[in-house]
Amino acid sequence: MPEPKYWHLKTVLSEALDSEFAVGEILPNERDLAARFGVARATLRQALEQLELEGRLQRRRGVGTTVAPPRMGVAVGSAQGTWPGAAGDAWQPADSELAPAPADVARALGVDPDEPVHTVRRTRVSHGQPVAAELLYVPAASVPDLSAIDAPIGPARARAVLRELGRLDLEGQDRAVELGSARADDAKALDRLPGAPVLVVTTRFLADGGTAALSMATYRADTCRLTFGDQGAVEIHHGPEQQAS
Amino acid sequence: MPEPKYWHLKTVLSEALDSEFAVGEILPNERDLAARFGVARATLRQALEQLELEGRLQRRRGVGTTVAPPRMGVAVGSAQGTWPGAAGDAWQPADSELAPAPADVARALGVDPDEPVHTVRRTRVSHGQPVAAELLYVPAASVPDLSAIDAPIGPARARAVLRELGRLDLEGQDRAVELGSARADDAKALDRLPGAPVLVVTTRFLADGGTAALSMATYRADTCRLTFGDQGAVEIHHGPEQQAS
Repeated sequence: MPEPKYWHLKTVLSEALDSEFAVGEILPNERDLAARFGVARATLRQALEQLELEGRLQRRRGVGTTVAPPRMGVAVGSAQGTWPGAAGDAWQPADSELAPAPADVARALGVDPDEPVHTVRRTRVSHGQPVAAELLYVPAASVPDLSAIDAPIGPARARAVLRELGRLDLEGQDRAVELGSARADDAKALDRLPGAPVLVVTTRFLADGGTAALSMATYRADTCRLTFGDQGAVEIHHGPEQQAS
Repeated sequence: MPEPKYWHLKTVLSEALDSEFAVGEILPNERDLAARFGVARATLRQALEQLELEGRLQRRRGVGTTVAPPRMGVAVGSAQGTWPGAAGDAWQPADSELAPAPADVARALGVDPDEPVHTVRRTRVSHGQPVAAELLYVPAASVPDLSAIDAPIGPARARAVLRELGRLDLEGQDRAVELGSARADDAKALDRLPGAPVLVVTTRFLADGGTAALSMATYRADTCRLTFGDQGAVEIHHGPEQQAS
Protein backbone atom coordinates (compact mmCIF):
# COMPACT_ATOMS: atom_id res chain seq x y z
CA MET A 1 0.00 0.00 0.00
CA PRO A 2 1.74 3.23 -1.08
CA GLU A 3 1.62 6.15 1.36
CA PRO A 4 -1.31 8.31 0.34
CA LYS A 5 -0.51 11.91 -0.60
CA TYR A 6 -2.16 13.44 2.45
CA TRP A 7 -0.08 11.22 4.67
CA HIS A 8 3.16 12.66 3.39
CA LEU A 9 1.64 16.13 3.64
CA LYS A 10 0.68 15.41 7.24
CA THR A 11 4.32 14.70 8.13
CA VAL A 12 5.49 17.88 6.40
CA LEU A 13 2.75 19.92 8.09
CA SER A 14 3.56 18.39 11.45
CA GLU A 15 7.19 19.48 11.14
CA ALA A 16 6.09 22.98 10.10
CA LEU A 17 3.87 23.14 13.21
CA ASP A 18 6.87 22.27 15.41
CA SER A 19 9.23 24.78 13.86
CA GLU A 20 7.13 27.72 12.74
CA PHE A 21 4.01 27.95 14.88
CA ALA A 22 3.34 28.58 18.54
CA VAL A 23 0.59 26.91 20.56
CA GLY A 24 -2.68 28.79 20.04
CA GLU A 25 -1.56 30.39 16.81
CA ILE A 26 -4.14 30.45 14.02
CA LEU A 27 -3.11 28.63 10.84
CA PRO A 28 -3.35 30.37 7.45
CA ASN A 29 -6.56 29.59 5.58
CA GLU A 30 -6.93 26.38 3.55
CA ARG A 31 -6.41 28.10 0.20
CA ASP A 32 -3.09 29.63 1.28
CA LEU A 33 -1.89 26.43 2.94
CA ALA A 34 -2.78 24.33 -0.11
CA ALA A 35 -0.88 26.78 -2.34
CA ARG A 36 2.15 26.80 -0.06
CA PHE A 37 2.46 23.00 0.02
CA GLY A 38 1.43 22.56 -3.61
CA VAL A 39 -1.52 20.23 -2.93
CA ALA A 40 -5.23 20.16 -3.72
CA ARG A 41 -7.52 21.51 -1.03
CA ALA A 42 -9.14 18.08 -0.57
CA THR A 43 -5.70 16.60 0.19
CA LEU A 44 -4.96 19.41 2.62
CA ARG A 45 -8.27 18.91 4.38
CA GLN A 46 -7.56 15.17 4.89
CA ALA A 47 -4.18 15.96 6.42
CA LEU A 48 -5.73 18.57 8.72
CA GLU A 49 -8.34 16.03 9.84
CA GLN A 50 -5.61 13.52 10.76
CA LEU A 51 -3.68 16.15 12.72
CA GLU A 52 -6.89 17.00 14.54
CA LEU A 53 -7.43 13.30 15.42
CA GLU A 54 -3.90 13.21 16.82
CA GLY A 55 -4.50 16.30 18.93
CA ARG A 56 -2.05 18.56 17.09
CA LEU A 57 -4.70 20.93 15.75
CA GLN A 58 -7.98 22.26 17.06
CA ARG A 59 -10.76 23.48 14.83
CA ARG A 60 -13.04 25.96 16.50
CA ARG A 61 -16.05 27.57 14.94
CA GLY A 62 -15.60 31.29 14.41
CA VAL A 63 -11.90 31.08 15.22
CA GLY A 64 -10.39 28.79 12.61
CA THR A 65 -7.74 26.12 12.97
CA THR A 66 -5.27 26.67 15.79
CA VAL A 67 -2.18 24.83 16.98
CA ALA A 68 -3.21 22.72 19.98
CA PRO A 69 -1.26 22.56 23.22
CA PRO A 70 0.14 19.10 24.06
CA ARG A 71 -2.53 16.80 25.41
CA MET A 72 -2.98 16.75 29.17
CA GLY A 73 -2.17 13.55 31.00
CA VAL A 74 -5.30 12.73 33.01
CA ALA A 75 -4.94 9.97 35.59
CA VAL A 76 -7.72 7.36 35.44
CA GLY A 77 -7.96 5.70 38.82
CA SER A 78 -5.20 3.81 40.57
CA ALA A 79 -4.29 0.15 40.32
CA GLN A 80 -5.73 -0.78 43.71
CA GLY A 81 -8.80 1.44 43.39
CA THR A 82 -10.90 3.58 45.66
CA TRP A 83 -14.59 4.46 45.74
CA PRO A 84 -15.76 7.49 43.76
CA GLY A 85 -15.73 10.47 46.11
CA ALA A 86 -12.81 9.20 48.21
CA ALA A 87 -10.15 11.67 49.36
CA GLY A 88 -8.16 13.01 46.41
CA ASP A 89 -10.92 12.28 43.89
CA ALA A 90 -10.64 14.70 40.97
CA TRP A 91 -14.39 14.71 40.25
CA GLN A 92 -16.96 17.31 41.30
CA PRO A 93 -20.49 16.03 42.01
CA ALA A 94 -23.02 18.16 40.16
CA ASP A 95 -26.37 16.46 40.57
CA SER A 96 -28.19 13.25 41.41
CA GLU A 97 -31.51 11.71 40.50
CA LEU A 98 -33.31 8.45 41.20
CA ALA A 99 -34.63 6.93 37.97
CA PRO A 100 -34.50 3.73 35.91
CA ALA A 101 -31.11 3.30 34.19
CA PRO A 102 -30.65 2.64 30.47
CA ALA A 103 -31.30 -1.02 29.60
CA ASP A 104 -27.62 -1.91 29.08
CA VAL A 105 -26.61 -0.31 32.40
CA ALA A 106 -29.42 -2.10 34.29
CA ARG A 107 -28.22 -5.38 32.78
CA ALA A 108 -24.61 -4.74 33.88
CA LEU A 109 -25.78 -3.79 37.38
CA GLY A 110 -27.99 -6.86 37.59
CA VAL A 111 -31.10 -4.83 38.43
CA ASP A 112 -34.57 -4.85 36.90
CA PRO A 113 -34.92 -2.56 33.85
CA ASP A 114 -37.55 -0.43 35.61
CA GLU A 115 -35.92 -0.42 39.05
CA PRO A 116 -34.87 3.13 40.05
CA VAL A 117 -31.11 3.65 40.29
CA HIS A 118 -29.26 6.63 41.79
CA THR A 119 -27.63 8.47 38.91
CA VAL A 120 -24.91 10.85 40.05
CA ARG A 121 -23.63 13.30 37.47
CA ARG A 122 -20.07 14.51 38.02
CA THR A 123 -17.61 16.63 36.08
CA ARG A 124 -13.86 16.77 36.07
CA VAL A 125 -11.76 19.88 35.49
CA SER A 126 -8.02 19.94 34.80
CA HIS A 127 -5.94 23.06 34.27
CA GLY A 128 -9.13 25.11 34.33
CA GLN A 129 -10.72 23.16 31.48
CA PRO A 130 -13.54 20.61 31.60
CA VAL A 131 -11.99 17.29 30.61
CA ALA A 132 -14.63 14.72 31.45
CA ALA A 133 -18.29 14.18 32.34
CA GLU A 134 -19.48 11.13 34.24
CA LEU A 135 -22.67 9.29 34.99
CA LEU A 136 -22.26 7.11 38.06
CA TYR A 137 -25.03 4.54 38.52
CA VAL A 138 -25.63 3.28 42.06
CA PRO A 139 -28.44 0.76 42.68
CA ALA A 140 -30.58 1.61 45.71
CA ALA A 141 -29.50 -1.71 47.25
CA SER A 142 -25.87 -0.48 47.38
CA VAL A 143 -26.81 2.46 49.61
CA PRO A 144 -29.61 1.04 51.81
CA ASP A 145 -29.30 3.70 54.51
CA LEU A 146 -29.62 6.61 52.11
CA SER A 147 -33.39 6.83 52.28
CA ALA A 148 -33.15 7.35 56.03
CA ILE A 149 -31.17 10.53 55.44
CA ASP A 150 -32.88 13.83 54.81
CA ALA A 151 -30.90 14.31 51.59
CA PRO A 152 -31.62 17.46 49.65
CA ILE A 153 -31.47 17.64 45.87
CA GLY A 154 -28.49 18.67 43.71
CA PRO A 155 -24.81 18.35 44.61
CA ALA A 156 -25.58 17.72 48.30
CA ARG A 157 -27.73 14.74 47.34
CA ALA A 158 -24.95 13.49 45.06
CA ARG A 159 -22.45 13.74 47.92
CA ALA A 160 -24.81 11.81 50.20
CA VAL A 161 -24.98 8.95 47.67
CA LEU A 162 -21.16 8.91 47.39
CA ARG A 163 -20.76 8.97 51.16
CA GLU A 164 -23.06 5.98 51.61
CA LEU A 165 -21.37 4.12 48.76
CA GLY A 166 -18.00 4.68 50.47
CA ARG A 167 -19.21 2.68 53.50
CA LEU A 168 -19.09 -0.53 51.45
CA ASP A 169 -16.03 -2.72 51.31
CA LEU A 170 -14.53 -2.30 47.80
CA GLU A 171 -13.54 -5.75 46.56
CA GLY A 172 -12.18 -4.73 43.19
CA GLN A 173 -12.80 -2.81 40.04
CA ASP A 174 -12.31 -3.24 36.36
CA ARG A 175 -12.26 -0.79 33.58
CA ALA A 176 -12.67 -0.54 29.82
CA VAL A 177 -11.79 2.26 27.40
CA GLU A 178 -13.33 2.68 23.98
CA LEU A 179 -13.99 5.26 21.31
CA GLY A 180 -17.38 6.97 21.34
CA SER A 181 -19.16 10.10 20.27
CA ALA A 182 -20.27 12.83 22.67
CA ARG A 183 -23.95 12.84 23.66
CA ALA A 184 -25.58 16.27 23.57
CA ASP A 185 -25.50 16.69 27.38
CA ASP A 186 -21.87 15.60 27.69
CA ALA A 187 -20.88 17.72 24.69
CA LYS A 188 -22.33 20.75 26.44
CA ALA A 189 -20.47 20.01 29.69
CA LEU A 190 -17.23 19.46 27.76
CA ASP A 191 -17.58 22.50 25.49
CA ARG A 192 -17.61 20.35 22.37
CA LEU A 193 -20.10 19.76 19.57
CA PRO A 194 -22.43 16.74 19.91
CA GLY A 195 -20.94 13.76 18.07
CA ALA A 196 -17.31 14.80 18.68
CA PRO A 197 -14.98 11.82 19.26
CA VAL A 198 -14.61 11.01 22.95
CA LEU A 199 -12.93 8.31 25.03
CA VAL A 200 -15.52 6.44 27.08
CA VAL A 201 -14.20 4.86 30.29
CA THR A 202 -16.50 2.32 31.91
CA THR A 203 -15.60 1.30 35.47
CA ARG A 204 -17.32 -1.40 37.45
CA PHE A 205 -16.97 -1.27 41.24
CA LEU A 206 -17.36 -4.62 42.96
CA ALA A 207 -18.60 -5.21 46.50
CA ASP A 208 -20.50 -7.97 48.30
CA GLY A 209 -19.85 -10.29 45.35
CA GLY A 210 -21.65 -8.07 42.84
CA THR A 211 -21.49 -4.79 40.97
CA ALA A 212 -22.14 -2.06 43.54
CA ALA A 213 -21.75 0.87 41.14
CA LEU A 214 -21.00 1.54 37.51
CA SER A 215 -19.32 4.66 36.14
CA MET A 216 -19.51 5.78 32.53
CA ALA A 217 -17.07 8.66 32.05
CA THR A 218 -16.69 10.57 28.81
CA TYR A 219 -13.29 12.20 28.28
CA ARG A 220 -12.43 14.77 25.63
CA ALA A 221 -10.37 12.85 23.09
CA ASP A 222 -8.83 16.00 21.63
CA THR A 223 -7.20 17.36 24.78
CA CYS A 224 -6.71 14.28 27.01
CA ARG A 225 -4.41 11.31 27.17
CA LEU A 226 -5.60 8.89 29.81
CA THR A 227 -2.88 7.63 32.13
CA PHE A 228 -2.95 4.40 34.12
CA GLY A 229 -0.76 3.20 36.94
CA ASP A 230 0.64 4.90 39.99
CA GLN A 231 3.98 5.94 38.55
CA GLY A 232 2.82 9.04 36.68
CA ALA A 233 2.26 9.72 33.02
CA VAL A 234 4.35 8.41 30.16
CA GLU A 235 5.86 11.42 28.50
CA ILE A 236 5.71 10.64 24.83
CA HIS A 237 4.47 13.49 22.73
CA HIS A 238 5.29 15.75 19.84
CA GLY A 239 6.28 19.38 20.15
CA PRO A 240 6.87 21.32 23.35
CA GLU A 241 6.92 19.88 26.85
CA GLN A 242 3.76 18.24 28.15
CA GLN A 243 1.77 19.83 30.92
CA ALA A 244 1.88 18.01 34.22
CA SER A 245 -1.17 15.99 35.13
CA MET B 1 -28.07 23.50 23.25
CA PRO B 2 -30.99 21.71 21.53
CA GLU B 3 -30.38 18.14 20.35
CA PRO B 4 -29.32 18.33 16.73
CA LYS B 5 -31.51 16.52 14.21
CA TYR B 6 -28.95 13.82 13.42
CA TRP B 7 -28.67 13.03 17.11
CA HIS B 8 -32.32 12.11 17.37
CA LEU B 9 -32.01 10.18 14.13
CA LYS B 10 -29.02 8.33 15.57
CA THR B 11 -31.15 7.11 18.49
CA VAL B 12 -33.94 6.00 16.17
CA LEU B 13 -31.47 4.28 13.84
CA SER B 14 -29.77 2.59 16.78
CA GLU B 15 -33.08 1.11 17.91
CA ALA B 16 -33.80 -0.05 14.36
CA LEU B 17 -30.40 -1.77 14.26
CA ASP B 18 -31.23 -3.65 17.48
CA SER B 19 -34.67 -4.77 16.40
CA GLU B 20 -34.53 -5.24 12.63
CA PHE B 21 -30.98 -6.06 11.57
CA ALA B 22 -28.58 -8.90 12.23
CA VAL B 23 -24.82 -8.54 12.68
CA GLY B 24 -23.13 -8.40 9.29
CA GLU B 25 -26.29 -7.40 7.46
CA ILE B 26 -25.87 -4.70 4.81
CA LEU B 27 -27.92 -1.54 5.40
CA PRO B 28 -30.13 -0.16 2.63
CA ASN B 29 -28.46 2.61 0.63
CA GLU B 30 -28.39 6.19 1.91
CA ARG B 31 -31.16 7.37 -0.40
CA ASP B 32 -33.59 4.68 0.82
CA LEU B 33 -32.66 5.17 4.48
CA ALA B 34 -33.06 8.96 4.23
CA ALA B 35 -36.49 8.47 2.64
CA ARG B 36 -37.57 5.94 5.26
CA PHE B 37 -36.66 8.22 8.19
CA GLY B 38 -37.78 11.41 6.43
CA VAL B 39 -34.43 13.23 6.73
CA ALA B 40 -31.98 14.88 4.36
CA ARG B 41 -29.09 12.74 3.20
CA ALA B 42 -26.57 15.04 4.93
CA THR B 43 -28.38 14.46 8.25
CA LEU B 44 -28.43 10.72 7.64
CA ARG B 45 -24.72 10.70 6.85
CA GLN B 46 -23.90 12.50 10.13
CA ALA B 47 -25.90 9.94 12.09
CA LEU B 48 -24.17 7.07 10.29
CA GLU B 49 -20.78 8.61 11.09
CA GLN B 50 -21.66 8.76 14.80
CA LEU B 51 -22.80 5.14 14.80
CA GLU B 52 -19.54 4.21 13.12
CA LEU B 53 -17.54 6.07 15.83
CA GLU B 54 -19.47 4.10 18.45
CA GLY B 55 -18.71 0.80 16.76
CA ARG B 56 -22.30 0.00 15.77
CA LEU B 57 -21.70 0.22 12.02
CA GLN B 58 -18.80 -0.64 9.75
CA ARG B 59 -18.28 1.01 6.40
CA ARG B 60 -16.28 -1.12 4.01
CA ARG B 61 -15.29 -0.16 0.54
CA GLY B 62 -16.99 -2.26 -2.11
CA VAL B 63 -19.37 -3.76 0.47
CA GLY B 64 -21.33 -0.86 1.90
CA THR B 65 -22.41 -0.19 5.46
CA THR B 66 -22.91 -3.26 7.61
CA VAL B 67 -24.09 -3.85 11.16
CA ALA B 68 -20.99 -4.37 13.31
CA PRO B 69 -20.62 -7.18 15.83
CA PRO B 70 -20.20 -6.01 19.46
CA ARG B 71 -16.69 -4.74 20.14
CA MET B 72 -14.21 -7.28 21.43
CA GLY B 73 -12.86 -6.79 24.93
CA VAL B 74 -9.07 -6.82 24.54
CA ALA B 75 -7.08 -7.02 27.77
CA VAL B 76 -4.27 -4.44 28.00
CA GLY B 77 -1.67 -5.74 30.43
CA SER B 78 -2.27 -6.61 34.04
CA ALA B 79 -2.06 -4.39 37.08
CA GLN B 80 1.25 -5.79 38.28
CA GLY B 81 2.78 -6.07 34.83
CA THR B 82 5.09 -8.46 33.02
CA TRP B 83 7.71 -8.00 30.31
CA PRO B 84 6.62 -8.16 26.69
CA GLY B 85 7.07 -11.73 25.49
CA ALA B 86 6.39 -13.28 28.91
CA ALA B 87 4.28 -16.43 29.11
CA GLY B 88 0.67 -15.75 28.12
CA ASP B 89 1.58 -12.68 26.06
CA ALA B 90 -1.01 -12.20 23.29
CA TRP B 91 1.47 -10.62 20.87
CA GLN B 92 3.30 -12.27 17.97
CA PRO B 93 6.78 -10.94 17.15
CA ALA B 94 7.04 -10.21 13.43
CA ASP B 95 10.34 -8.46 12.92
CA SER B 96 13.15 -6.49 14.53
CA GLU B 97 15.64 -3.89 13.37
CA LEU B 98 18.35 -1.80 14.99
CA ALA B 99 17.99 1.86 14.02
CA PRO B 100 17.63 5.31 15.56
CA ALA B 101 14.18 5.82 17.10
CA PRO B 102 11.88 8.78 16.34
CA ALA B 103 12.96 11.90 18.25
CA ASP B 104 10.10 11.77 20.77
CA VAL B 105 10.75 8.09 21.52
CA ALA B 106 14.50 8.69 21.97
CA ARG B 107 13.68 11.50 24.41
CA ALA B 108 11.34 9.24 26.43
CA LEU B 109 13.97 6.48 26.52
CA GLY B 110 16.65 8.92 27.54
CA VAL B 111 18.95 7.95 24.66
CA ASP B 112 20.73 10.07 22.08
CA PRO B 113 18.61 10.90 19.02
CA ASP B 114 21.02 9.07 16.69
CA GLU B 115 21.71 6.11 18.99
CA PRO B 116 20.45 2.85 17.45
CA VAL B 117 17.55 1.24 19.31
CA HIS B 118 16.11 -2.26 18.83
CA THR B 119 12.68 -1.85 17.28
CA VAL B 120 10.55 -4.96 17.57
CA ARG B 121 7.37 -5.05 15.52
CA ARG B 122 4.62 -7.23 16.88
CA THR B 123 1.00 -7.90 16.00
CA ARG B 124 -1.91 -9.07 18.02
CA VAL B 125 -4.76 -11.22 16.75
CA SER B 126 -8.04 -11.84 18.58
CA HIS B 127 -10.86 -14.07 17.32
CA GLY B 128 -8.97 -14.47 14.07
CA GLN B 129 -8.81 -10.74 13.38
CA PRO B 130 -5.82 -8.40 13.64
CA VAL B 131 -6.62 -6.03 16.52
CA ALA B 132 -3.36 -4.24 17.19
CA ALA B 133 0.11 -3.48 15.84
CA GLU B 134 3.00 -2.57 18.13
CA LEU B 135 6.42 -1.00 17.92
CA LEU B 136 8.47 -1.95 20.96
CA TYR B 137 11.61 0.17 21.40
CA VAL B 138 14.46 -1.39 23.40
CA PRO B 139 17.71 0.57 23.84
CA ALA B 140 20.82 -1.52 23.24
CA ALA B 141 21.84 -0.82 26.86
CA SER B 142 18.76 -2.75 28.09
CA VAL B 143 19.92 -5.94 26.35
CA PRO B 144 23.72 -5.81 26.65
CA ASP B 145 24.23 -9.52 25.98
CA LEU B 146 22.29 -9.56 22.74
CA SER B 147 25.21 -8.70 20.50
CA ALA B 148 27.02 -11.80 21.74
CA ILE B 149 24.26 -13.97 20.37
CA ASP B 150 24.23 -15.09 16.78
CA ALA B 151 20.75 -13.64 16.32
CA PRO B 152 19.25 -14.06 12.88
CA ILE B 153 16.94 -11.52 11.32
CA GLY B 154 13.13 -11.48 11.38
CA PRO B 155 10.89 -13.02 14.06
CA ALA B 156 13.76 -15.04 15.58
CA ARG B 157 15.75 -11.84 16.09
CA ALA B 158 12.67 -10.22 17.65
CA ARG B 159 12.30 -13.16 20.04
CA ALA B 160 15.97 -12.88 21.00
CA VAL B 161 15.50 -9.20 21.94
CA LEU B 162 12.43 -10.08 24.04
CA ARG B 163 14.23 -12.96 25.73
CA GLU B 164 17.13 -10.72 26.74
CA LEU B 165 14.75 -7.98 27.90
CA GLY B 166 12.99 -10.54 30.10
CA ARG B 167 16.21 -11.08 32.08
CA LEU B 168 15.89 -7.62 33.62
CA ASP B 169 14.08 -7.02 36.88
CA LEU B 170 10.81 -5.22 36.01
CA GLU B 171 10.34 -2.43 38.56
CA GLY B 172 7.08 -1.05 37.26
CA GLN B 173 5.20 0.15 34.27
CA ASP B 174 2.86 2.94 33.37
CA ARG B 175 0.52 3.37 30.52
CA ALA B 176 -1.34 6.03 28.58
CA VAL B 177 -4.22 5.74 26.12
CA GLU B 178 -5.09 8.37 23.55
CA LEU B 179 -6.85 8.84 20.25
CA GLY B 180 -4.72 8.72 17.11
CA SER B 181 -4.86 8.01 13.41
CA ALA B 182 -3.42 4.88 11.80
CA ARG B 183 -0.03 5.25 10.09
CA ALA B 184 0.18 3.60 6.67
CA ASP B 185 2.15 0.57 7.95
CA ASP B 186 -0.16 0.00 10.93
CA ALA B 187 -3.22 0.52 8.74
CA LYS B 188 -2.00 -2.24 6.46
CA ALA B 189 -1.39 -4.63 9.37
CA LEU B 190 -4.82 -3.82 10.81
CA ASP B 191 -6.72 -4.02 7.53
CA ARG B 192 -7.85 -0.41 7.80
CA LEU B 193 -7.33 2.70 5.68
CA PRO B 194 -4.46 5.03 6.65
CA GLY B 195 -5.77 7.78 8.90
CA ALA B 196 -8.54 5.66 10.45
CA PRO B 197 -9.15 6.45 14.13
CA VAL B 198 -7.13 4.19 16.43
CA LEU B 199 -6.44 3.93 20.15
CA VAL B 200 -2.74 4.39 20.86
CA VAL B 201 -1.49 2.71 24.04
CA THR B 202 1.95 3.83 25.20
CA THR B 203 3.56 1.66 27.89
CA ARG B 204 6.81 2.45 29.64
CA PHE B 205 8.66 -0.47 31.26
CA LEU B 206 10.90 0.54 34.14
CA ALA B 207 14.05 -1.25 35.29
CA ASP B 208 17.33 -0.22 36.90
CA GLY B 209 15.84 3.17 37.74
CA GLY B 210 15.14 4.09 34.12
CA THR B 211 13.01 3.29 31.11
CA ALA B 212 14.18 -0.09 29.80
CA ALA B 213 11.65 -0.33 26.97
CA LEU B 214 8.82 1.62 25.45
CA SER B 215 5.84 0.14 23.64
CA MET B 216 3.60 2.07 21.26
CA ALA B 217 0.63 -0.13 20.40
CA THR B 218 -2.06 0.88 17.93
CA TYR B 219 -5.45 -0.77 18.48
CA ARG B 220 -8.36 -0.74 16.05
CA ALA B 221 -10.83 1.69 17.56
CA ASP B 222 -13.76 0.31 15.60
CA THR B 223 -13.63 -3.29 16.82
CA CYS B 224 -11.84 -3.08 20.20
CA ARG B 225 -12.65 -1.99 23.70
CA LEU B 226 -9.52 -2.00 25.83
CA THR B 227 -9.94 -3.65 29.22
CA PHE B 228 -7.83 -3.02 32.29
CA GLY B 229 -7.58 -4.93 35.53
CA ASP B 230 -7.41 -8.59 36.35
CA GLN B 231 -11.09 -9.17 36.95
CA GLY B 232 -12.19 -9.45 33.34
CA ALA B 233 -14.03 -7.11 31.04
CA VAL B 234 -16.87 -4.82 32.00
CA GLU B 235 -19.87 -5.98 30.04
CA ILE B 236 -21.62 -2.80 29.03
CA HIS B 237 -22.69 -2.70 25.44
CA HIS B 238 -25.59 -2.23 23.14
CA GLY B 239 -27.26 -4.97 21.21
CA PRO B 240 -26.52 -8.68 21.39
CA GLU B 241 -24.19 -10.35 23.87
CA GLN B 242 -20.52 -9.36 23.80
CA GLN B 243 -17.88 -11.83 22.72
CA ALA B 244 -15.62 -13.07 25.48
CA SER B 245 -12.15 -11.55 25.69
